[in-house]
Amino acid sequence: MPPKASAPKPLAKGARRHPERSPPARTESWLYGRHAVAAALANPQRIWRRLAVLPGHAAAAAVLADTAAARRRGSGEAIRVMDRAAFDRLLPEGAVHQGWALEVEPLEPADLDDALRAAAVNRAGGGRRSVVVVLDQVSDPHNAGAVLRSAAAFGAAAVVLAGHAAPPAAGALGKAASGALDRMPLVRAGNAAQVLDRLKAAGYWCVGLDEGAPAPLAACDPGPRVALVLGSEGGGLRRLVRERCDYLARLPTRPELPSLNVSNAAAIALYELVRAEG
Amino acid sequence: MPPKASAPKPLAKGARRHPERSPPARTESWLYGRHAVAAALANPQRIWRRLAVLPGHAAAAAVLADTAAARRRGSGEAIRVMDRAAFDRLLPEGAVHQGWALEVEPLEPADLDDALRAAAVNRAGGGRRSVVVVLDQVSDPHNAGAVLRSAAAFGAAAVVLAGHAAPPAAGALGKAASGALDRMPLVRAGNAAQVLDRLKAAGYWCVGLDEGAPAPLAACDPGPRVALVLGSEGGGLRRLVRERCDYLARLPTRPELPSLNVSNAAAIALYELVRAEG
Repeated sequence: MPPKASAPKPLAKGARRHPERSPPARTESWLYGRHAVAAALANPQRIWRRLAVLPGHAAAAAVLADTAAARRRGSGEAIRVMDRAAFDRLLPEGAVHQGWALEVEPLEPADLDDALRAAAVNRAGGGRRSVVVVLDQVSDPHNAGAVLRSAAAFGAAAVVLAGHAAPPAAGALGKAASGALDRMPLVRAGNAAQVLDRLKAAGYWCVGLDEGAPAPLAACDPGPRVALVLGSEGGGLRRLVRERCDYLARLPTRPELPSLNVSNAAAIALYELVRAEG
Repeated sequence: MPPKASAPKPLAKGARRHPERSPPARTESWLYGRHAVAAALANPQRIWRRLAVLPGHAAAAAVLADTAAARRRGSGEAIRVMDRAAFDRLLPEGAVHQGWALEVEPLEPADLDDALRAAAVNRAGGGRRSVVVVLDQVSDPHNAGAVLRSAAAFGAAAVVLAGHAAPPAAGALGKAASGALDRMPLVRAGNAAQVLDRLKAAGYWCVGLDEGAPAPLAACDPGPRVALVLGSEGGGLRRLVRERCDYLARLPTRPELPSLNVSNAAAIALYELVRAEG
């Protein structure tokens, strides 16, 4: 879905995105988990270095690595068959790797305009509602990854991680995304308010989720292009972001216990927006 | 349609819950996070030993501890004001404690029949649908905790953790539950199929979430008492559990990327069941 449509433009991208810096250094990192590793090896944009597997996965690893051989960088063995103790030394404590880990180079962050263009092309064909999820100040990698996964499952156009505390696109985020990190456009932005301005200029209606809003999300008909805006785990929507929203909506939780995990709130809102698109 | 609810049975609780064992040993453990600690101190069933806070929370801690003084066990200082380094030594690596930690004794697991009776009383008053969430073989404490939190937010009657890999009701589960651990009945069971049999005997319609089911959950009208059944993070519903369900339903995810995080799937299903209750 996204990789095809978000083809690179013939632009000096690095200059536009990081006007004050040279292109970022390509540091390596590990993705882990069966789905995350398989999706990375299947992603035409993903450069990888080494695949590590438990002995039971050696044959499957050879097949997968072969299909992705053209995107490998680095020398030495492409596949290392390791025992559990070696995995534990390789990955962060507590990493649920399922016997699969892949050393990768980070993906180039997606460009919002590219993602919106791709969504417009998709809509022209099928007529589905286009939804962009904007997470402001969300710092937990499990939450960000789970939102990516839900966004992919409900056919969203992109996920935007705004704020400087946003987690890196590897490790725990990749595991929680369960393959969606290599399938969904993931946009990074310093300032959520500026992102909402760009989305509004592109015809998106900005809907902020807010426990204190008077109207439920189901009562809102935001049209064919929707930006779904969620605040941080602790603080909710900040004032400057809230003021940019065209509509504030709540989910029908109990007044005495209104709060949901941010990825659960995003999943419910994505469901409601897809359910109601007719 | 589901059978009529059976009449409440007479008690003899301790014997029924642990027929072959003496009462479990009372081991201590830590809860952390602002909401988890506050809810535990407010819970009339919760025994606590020590409260640890960062210096900025000392005054608030004194007030909270005072309201819960009657449920404290143990000697020495009730409140310890600690710096960040001391917190890091006290709690597991990476614990997001927000400056609050409480050493507690575990709660007695809730009894399913007690929870169903309480739900029946609530329904008699208000007429809301009664929902019990059954998680079979879910082992991730963040997922189990987030489901508890969503269950509380949508007014579910109870959450059942079935299977021997279910996580302990402390630490990471308590943090993810954000206070719901001390507000929601949490039932533990070795065997999910037996739990479903008991729920069916009590008039609950068992709805299993299954990516491969032909009908969407929104097309199902399961009546006033619903058991929502979800399988493990990796394997989905097991055959013996699936066969016990009265109805299998899917969420409207894309066929090429159907899978959701288990807590996100539970949140969406709870939302749908509450939304549709009229």
